[in-house]
Amino acid sequence: MKIVCDKSELLKSINISLKAVPVRSTIPVLECILISAGPAGIVFTTNDTELGIETYVKGEVLEPGVIAVQAKMFSEIARKLPMDEVIITSDENYNITIVSGKARFAIGGQSGEDFAYLPQVERDDSIMLSQFTLRNVIQQTIFSIAAGDNNRIMSGEFFEISDTGLRVIALDGHRIAIRHIDLPGSYPHITAIVPGKALTEISKIFTGDLDDMVNIYFTKSHIMLEIPGTTIVSRLIEGQYFNVDQMISSDYATKVRINNRTLVSCVDRATLFVREGDKKPIILDFDDVHMNISIASPMGSMNEDVDIEKEGRDLAIGFNPRFLIDALRAISDEEINMYFTNAKSPCFIRDDEGTYTYLILPVNFTR
Amino acid sequence: MKIVCDKSELLKSINISLKAVPVRSTIPVLECILISAGPAGIVFTTNDTELGIETYVKGEVLEPGVIAVQAKMFSEIARKLPMDEVIITSDENYNITIVSGKARFAIGGQSGEDFAYLPQVERDDSIMLSQFTLRNVIQQTIFSIAAGDNNRIMSGEFFEISDTGLRVIALDGHRIAIRHIDLPGSYPHITAIVPGKALTEISKIFTGDLDDMVNIYFTKSHIMLEIPGTTIVSRLIEGQYFNVDQMISSDYATKVRINNRTLVSCVDRATLFVREGDKKPIILDFDDVHMNISIASPMGSMNEDVDIEKEGRDLAIGFNPRFLIDALRAISDEEINMYFTNAKSPCFIRDDEGTYTYLILPVNFTR
Repeated sequence: MKIVCDKSELLKSINISLKAVPVRSTIPVLECILISAGPAGIVFTTNDTELGIETYVKGEVLEPGVIAVQAKMFSEIARKLPMDEVIITSDENYNITIVSGKARFAIGGQSGEDFAYLPQVERDDSIMLSQFTLRNVIQQTIFSIAAGDNNRIMSGEFFEISDTGLRVIALDGHRIAIRHIDLPGSYPHITAIVPGKALTEISKIFTGDLDDMVNIYFTKSHIMLEIPGTTIVSRLIEGQYFNVDQMISSDYATKVRINNRTLVSCVDRATLFVREGDKKPIILDFDDVHMNISIASPMGSMNEDVDIEKEGRDLAIGFNPRFLIDALRAISDEEINMYFTNAKSPCFIRDDEGTYTYLILPVNFTR
Repeated sequence: MKIVCDKSELLKSINISLKAVPVRSTIPVLECILISAGPAGIVFTTNDTELGIETYVKGEVLEPGVIAVQAKMFSEIARKLPMDEVIITSDENYNITIVSGKARFAIGGQSGEDFAYLPQVERDDSIMLSQFTLRNVIQQTIFSIAAGDNNRIMSGEFFEISDTGLRVIALDGHRIAIRHIDLPGSYPHITAIVPGKALTEISKIFTGDLDDMVNIYFTKSHIMLEIPGTTIVSRLIEGQYFNVDQMISSDYATKVRINNRTLVSCVDRATLFVREGDKKPIILDFDDVHMNISIASPMGSMNEDVDIEKEGRDLAIGFNPRFLIDALRAISDEEINMYFTNAKSPCFIRDDEGTYTYLILPVNFTR
């Protein structure tokens, strides 16, 4: 195999490919980027068995061939190449040579035979939205999943496509994050649980440009995302997702309107007194015009008054400050509405348009 | 105690003070900043028993007093204060209250009784130079000390003041770094071994402005540095430093002139194939106009030709690439001179003016 390409194009494709390379694997070939050079051009493939990525590399094929190269070393070499033009060759013994200017690197490659290519996904109905929007939807919900393997379903996000658009849900037993976006056109009802880890990596590939689109396809066991030059396929999590609509209520006894930035910085100050594994709640105590925010831990205490607009009953309620700040930081609105029923019932933060809903369970507190 | 100051001034003084706070200590009071408020103003003192810092805080003393506050928590609170004005009070039970705008923090303090104040250092003869220069001299040598306690003397830098100026030396058994600067005026001969860890922290306090000066005082057991508003005192390391002049020779068989930036980026590429604890040498092999730089390890190999000017014999010599790159990066000259005798003798990198000398021992290599 012999290919020639620009350093910047090489780096762009490596950076995309790395998102599907496991940090450490018992199967060495999974730590590799598969370079395929053929009539269709140069393609890099990576696959960590859950998430797989195929991306085109702008460049020229001088001799077709296939070789697997250790991704981390390949990436480090690419970053340190002295010149723009890069020539990559491999021989029948899987020796790889990378030449740029006067610098010449030689590393060992592997046969691509054991490499797991991406599963074939049929391209039928797809939904299309901007990469920017999908990235936002992921970032504004993903913090609410439960990582770890205790409950596999909670480690994914629930995607639901219906006539009203796309709804994405994440929950961990203490909180729920829901984002809804309208989709143009009409779609059949589709539901899927997408692994959170894969979504985190995928969202890093997306650009921040509203004009750059992504096409999404679902099958029974996979989600495929297509952006120009790159195809991403992730396995889905099998199982039945929670009935979230049952947990959500629009009744409330108290409605509070508050400046989000003020509340974020105030809760942020309170988190100073919370250490990992600590269960110290932050207490919101409000009358008609003020919310008093306080926290007390063995390390110290803080309290602060914030101006609010309130409808309904006075209330004092405790929360895990991290859950509160995660939700608040995901909201870009300047002013937010918080809805409460009583000190034992969840708090809802949602906008009138239904684009976001955050549910947070309160915690007991003593004073 | 009651003091009032600006958040920016508070942060400035805390950042300076933190340099002499140990990350973890068995003596809790060492993890504190001592706040002293009196007729002379507000002073923060920190002392990790090796390095001590005293710094003034611009502000107003409303009630004099002394209190020790846990430095890390104090620093975190200061960073998150909402408003410019900060009021800090303490009561007879060592309770500390920090108020800024509507936010009110309460944390426990400690009596300042057990606090180790800075040792008194007599201000007699001092040498004065710019903070910028001293910071450079430290940064351009400190990488050559041997950290760790195997040889206490090697963990410090040797300061030698004489009629010709200030010479600073660091060595670790494999390399030596020497910087010399002229000093205006004449000084008695002074030598001292200053702990490397203290110098690293001290250099972070210095500004990058050539007009900001530092006064340095030496006693038998301490070095004291004074910059406006701040006094820094470090213990010295006891013992006899190595006779470095014996190790340095101006004879050579080969002189090579080379572009420093080209060599740095080339050696940097070679370090890709070196892992921690690995002993793979980089080999410099030169004829009259080229230096071939190569490395080979189980991970792969690299080689590259660099243009040089050469006087004297051809030579091939091996080095630990990290030692080479540390020295090269410390030199700001565009072109450097390297002096060699043979493959078993040290390489010297030095300028004609004698402002810097780097000695690096070669390592054996096989091809």
